[in-house]
Amino acid sequence: MTQLEIARRGHTSPQMQRVAEDEHVSVEYLQQGLADGTVVIPCNNRRNNAKPYGIGKGLRTKINANIGTSAEFGDKASEIAKAQAAIGAGADAIMDLSTGGDISGIRRSVLEASTVPLGTVPIYQAAVEATEAHGAIVNMTVDGLFDAIKEHCEDGVDFITVHCGITQASVSRLKQQGRVTDVVSRGGSFLIGWMLHNERENPLYEYYDRLLDIAGKYDVTLSLGDGMRPGCLADASDRPQIEELITLGELVQRARDAGVQAMVEGPGHVPLDQIATNVQIEKSLCKGAPFYVLGPLVTDIGAGYDHIVATIGGAIAASAGADFLCYVTPSEHLSLPTLEDVKEGVIASRIAAHVADVVKGVKGAREWDLAMSKARKALDWETQIKLSLDPERARRVHNRMPSSGAACSMCGPYCAMEVMAKYLGITSQKC
Amino acid sequence: MTQLEIARRGHTSPQMQRVAEDEHVSVEYLQQGLADGTVVIPCNNRRNNAKPYGIGKGLRTKINANIGTSAEFGDKASEIAKAQAAIGAGADAIMDLSTGGDISGIRRSVLEASTVPLGTVPIYQAAVEATEAHGAIVNMTVDGLFDAIKEHCEDGVDFITVHCGITQASVSRLKQQGRVTDVVSRGGSFLIGWMLHNERENPLYEYYDRLLDIAGKYDVTLSLGDGMRPGCLADASDRPQIEELITLGELVQRARDAGVQAMVEGPGHVPLDQIATNVQIEKSLCKGAPFYVLGPLVTDIGAGYDHIVATIGGAIAASAGADFLCYVTPSEHLSLPTLEDVKEGVIASRIAAHVADVVKGVKGAREWDLAMSKARKALDWETQIKLSLDPERARRVHNRMPSSGAACSMCGPYCAMEVMAKYLGITSQKC
Repeated sequence: MTQLEIARRGHTSPQMQRVAEDEHVSVEYLQQGLADGTVVIPCNNRRNNAKPYGIGKGLRTKINANIGTSAEFGDKASEIAKAQAAIGAGADAIMDLSTGGDISGIRRSVLEASTVPLGTVPIYQAAVEATEAHGAIVNMTVDGLFDAIKEHCEDGVDFITVHCGITQASVSRLKQQGRVTDVVSRGGSFLIGWMLHNERENPLYEYYDRLLDIAGKYDVTLSLGDGMRPGCLADASDRPQIEELITLGELVQRARDAGVQAMVEGPGHVPLDQIATNVQIEKSLCKGAPFYVLGPLVTDIGAGYDHIVATIGGAIAASAGADFLCYVTPSEHLSLPTLEDVKEGVIASRIAAHVADVVKGVKGAREWDLAMSKARKALDWETQIKLSLDPERARRVHNRMPSSGAACSMCGPYCAMEVMAKYLGITSQKC
Repeated sequence: MTQLEIARRGHTSPQMQRVAEDEHVSVEYLQQGLADGTVVIPCNNRRNNAKPYGIGKGLRTKINANIGTSAEFGDKASEIAKAQAAIGAGADAIMDLSTGGDISGIRRSVLEASTVPLGTVPIYQAAVEATEAHGAIVNMTVDGLFDAIKEHCEDGVDFITVHCGITQASVSRLKQQGRVTDVVSRGGSFLIGWMLHNERENPLYEYYDRLLDIAGKYDVTLSLGDGMRPGCLADASDRPQIEELITLGELVQRARDAGVQAMVEGPGHVPLDQIATNVQIEKSLCKGAPFYVLGPLVTDIGAGYDHIVATIGGAIAASAGADFLCYVTPSEHLSLPTLEDVKEGVIASRIAAHVADVVKGVKGAREWDLAMSKARKALDWETQIKLSLDPERARRVHNRMPSSGAACSMCGPYCAMEVMAKYLGITSQKC
């Protein structure tokens, strides 16, 4: 049985108990969210080395770090190192997006090395294998695609991105729309290329029940991909994107009916003032399904700093109700990320998630800020460093210019905290 | 005559013409904004080596970089280097906050080296001199404070932060409130310490007309400081902060009546969902005076990454109508910034400003993103790099892993842009 089915029957699982404890919510709350489909616990029933995480309504905003080889760069060792760096920096989940080298071997090694849920995009492997065996992605067979999906699920992958919402109708809307950057989702482009070349419906849509059977068997959470994700501000919130989202809403319903856990993927490049709308329309069209967003990137010109651009969008999206943020690294749009990029991307994404959790009222979020502020007022540097997102970095920066007094090197003897402590002499009521 | 007085008489100045041209607005629009006080052009009439910038309604969001020595670190050379790094990275203004070494000499050197408007906080120098001459900040004399202000204005400083809105009434509200971090504005803490110790009203409030005389003579723009700026999320938008803002609104009106340009300073630490409110209340209480915000920092726990935290807050604030963003560097709360920190802080702040300009409809903002997106679709790397915020960094990251194909190393032969170009075969209507 899947976590959804267990919850729907009013039972609990060890995963639910663990998540409820971590999130400081009741098991009943979690059970209800799972049964309603507003919460998922991506947790393949063949996997036993990962800590379960809940994603959805009322829970801490989670973040995902993408890793993986490309055709020319990376191998098993580099990807295990990236997975470990991401987890060490605080990632709640990892996606292995490998398209080069021994894809199956890399995935299995990352699964072994990871203590967090792992996601993949099986069509990447199917496309690479079709290219190698039959000369082109468009020569991929339907069975080849489903074999890749089955292999990933059997290996223990916890969630898979499947671009089921692309249909001939959405492709037609795409053509009619006339976009600046057409399609930037890799999986989406593979499927659309295949559909146009073969003049057939998207197999992930046509044979969606076959997908549900596989996902249900292993309790793999479907992450319904947004193949029509806007690749630039000018393409945001347009007709193909919303057409696909309507279909995804229908597919969420079918997944729930089949007892399969499902979340929905969204954004990409979106102007700041359209982000909340994007979250609201997903929640409404997909009946509250957890929303997993890439970025959003609130400008197209941030190459080299897209982790910062995504932090703006991620904070706003999560504040508006997005549940799961996919990180963006400083190398986005330019290159595969390095180990250091992975760490920077995870920290940036954690900032976005936490900032949102403060305003979402997630338990423990404001308390963390308050503890930090009290330590700051007290000029208690050890506690401030301990409470920082990245204590090692905070310590290094603080110690770079050692001040002779209690204050830091920025203000030295002219520290506002010290002046006020001396002259105000009030005991704060909040402390 | 000040720019405000010139505009009010229906005349134009070379500064207005230059700003109108840079901003793609009409001189009449600018003239009206200056006359209404919704726009300022900080431009000391003794200064002739700086490019004039307009700050306010309908104009591009500007950003400021703080530099300056502390008691134990920095000298003339280090601060000139920081000013140049900030301007090189795209800062629209610099503030010299020096509190160590030859403060006057450093300010004059930075003025000479800067091609952008320069701001200072004269009370810093007055406080340091009072400490040196009389043993403590609270022994500062009223004349000592006004002498420092006069010296800065005579030197050619374009805008000065003056915490005129702190009054015995706001200090009383501060005591009654009971804050977690009391007062974190340095100038604010100096004045409050002085007021409590000497049991007197804030001289910048009591002798505001004296300040207006000096500012009017040199056309120095008053940046009405927020001494009650919240230093943590828990203190945001509280009674002392809003009490001070009401007073600042009155002082804006008096400045306008005296023909003196004025803007208002705000935020600090503010939860994401209170930022728009903070901007709206400033605009309403201060009759549309340009709003100059520090950060805002949307969490207290970001030490080491506070430039990213501030970018979230700055983007939202500017989208809601803030006009001028003060950068925050990665060293905030921990140490004086390094040269590299200054650059990182400026770029992060430029991202916030641009992201807001896109949604504010500032001319040229969306066009920049569109040009980048077209280059991205065309896999035209030279143009993408040229259009990046920081071309040097974009080039370095792109070249780090050289791909053998047209796409970057992230996707290699499995590039969505290439797949779509091959199979979709539509000519985008927007291109």
